[in-house]
Amino acid sequence: MSLLVVGSTALDSIKTPKAENPRLLGGSASHAAVAASYYCPVRMVGIVGEDFPARYLKLYQRRGIDLAGLQRVSGKTFHWSGEYEVNMNNRRTLRTELGVFAGFSPELPEAYRRTPFVLLANIGPGLQAHVLDQMIRPRFVVADTMDLWLNTALADLMKLLKRIDALVLNDSEARQLTGHDNVISAARQIHRFGPRFVIIKKGEHGALLSSPSGLFIAPAYPLMRVVDPTGAGDSFVGGLMGYLAVTKGSLERNLRRAVAHGAVVASFCCEGFGLTKTIKASRALIEQRVRELEKLTSW
Amino acid sequence: MSLLVVGSTALDSIKTPKAENPRLLGGSASHAAVAASYYCPVRMVGIVGEDFPARYLKLYQRRGIDLAGLQRVSGKTFHWSGEYEVNMNNRRTLRTELGVFAGFSPELPEAYRRTPFVLLANIGPGLQAHVLDQMIRPRFVVADTMDLWLNTALADLMKLLKRIDALVLNDSEARQLTGHDNVISAARQIHRFGPRFVIIKKGEHGALLSSPSGLFIAPAYPLMRVVDPTGAGDSFVGGLMGYLAVTKGSLERNLRRAVAHGAVVASFCCEGFGLTKTIKASRALIEQRVRELEKLTSW
Repeated sequence: MSLLVVGSTALDSIKTPKAENPRLLGGSASHAAVAASYYCPVRMVGIVGEDFPARYLKLYQRRGIDLAGLQRVSGKTFHWSGEYEVNMNNRRTLRTELGVFAGFSPELPEAYRRTPFVLLANIGPGLQAHVLDQMIRPRFVVADTMDLWLNTALADLMKLLKRIDALVLNDSEARQLTGHDNVISAARQIHRFGPRFVIIKKGEHGALLSSPSGLFIAPAYPLMRVVDPTGAGDSFVGGLMGYLAVTKGSLERNLRRAVAHGAVVASFCCEGFGLTKTIKASRALIEQRVRELEKLTSW
Repeated sequence: MSLLVVGSTALDSIKTPKAENPRLLGGSASHAAVAASYYCPVRMVGIVGEDFPARYLKLYQRRGIDLAGLQRVSGKTFHWSGEYEVNMNNRRTLRTELGVFAGFSPELPEAYRRTPFVLLANIGPGLQAHVLDQMIRPRFVVADTMDLWLNTALADLMKLLKRIDALVLNDSEARQLTGHDNVISAARQIHRFGPRFVIIKKGEHGALLSSPSGLFIAPAYPLMRVVDPTGAGDSFVGGLMGYLAVTKGSLERNLRRAVAHGAVVASFCCEGFGLTKTIKASRALIEQRVRELEKLTSW
């Protein structure tokens, strides 16, 4: 089945202690859509300006991503620049230039409205809700969020939580959203806000999936070297939704393995700047790492 | 088979945001020996002063721990007091009174020298080596250590590493010992220092076991509420060694399950002050949590 991905489509300039990479293809929708493209047909909704490089459009196309929902307008593409510290855990935003994204209103092509799987990648919860307003009976809706929206659009986020099947967020965001320091308590509180499924990302420590049938403690794929973690969370949820969209059987049963697939796709993302390593993955390479991860965690 | 445990036997006064508990039974040997006592016969080597409460000796005895190696001398028992912050992750030592521990030289009763499994719980590496000097062909030797010894007795520790089968330490200590920020690289470096097995503890995020056959990513048993994490690391390695001592088959194959058992025993430890919850466990309750952990991590 198909997956609709809505989110930001951006140019990222990323500094790490070892390198500087200007104007990489980035944004939550780009990472999530490319990740999902290894599994299922992907329809992308986003906005770019006239400075958006043609080679990045070609990259989407090579991954088979349907771009009917990608608005191309005059003005500049959303540009984010940030810097990582030595241990790659702390990120500092140097500059955010919204450009055409400031006026973004995600309008869905008619053909997109019945897409069964919907990934509301990280953008404001008001925009995420606007996408949901246009959907006709989606089968499974996941939203990703971030601290920015907890600080600036909490009321919108709380309304959105009643309309989605699953929420994905990281551990510090889960603590902030609920006031619970313990992540398991935090997950329980988030269920009360609406979503049946809560996925709390813990970076290199893996993720926690809380669902009606209980908890799943998911590992991260272990990496000796992280080059650039930008987009890892988006890749994680993209891989997860892509896997779900094409896997038969009970959604709830499939979710555990979907989380593992998300972790593996995110591992490719971390191994290179921007999407450089993600686009060199393949379904076979992903499956190989999933099998490895299975061996690394079985006892 | 039997397990020899050497380490500190102390009185711990522990403050948390919610409670204050003076003179609890503590110390690395106490936690490790009680944890291991759910699996195998345990011989303990340590030292206490004349103020050591009789009820704590009875506690050891109720757990079947052989106390022929516990020196009782005139003077005061090692007393540690510390305070935990709200999130239970940061600990501050308020006071350390070594008492009789300052003159501790672990001398093994003749009957202890051929104990097949040896746990050098957390004490100075010089004392740990002195115990090894007295052992006759032990089958499997594990040492635990801490940042204090990295800072004050590194040369002794490096010598010890060539004589042990496995080293247990936490992630920040592994980084400090090796200069590697990545825990997998750190584990590889520690193998080069000597031990065939390296176990890096990551607290609530579980543990990493690195062995000749590869990595094992081990989960922690998830707790909604941590009352007092003091001794969790000692309980972890105690449970691990106790399980290994009584489990037939290849040591290396058994180690993964041993790590899971250690994690479960440590979870009981965290649920109460000092040893109060550890002593209320049973082999059946431990097995139940191990089965739960298996369900929580399988996919």
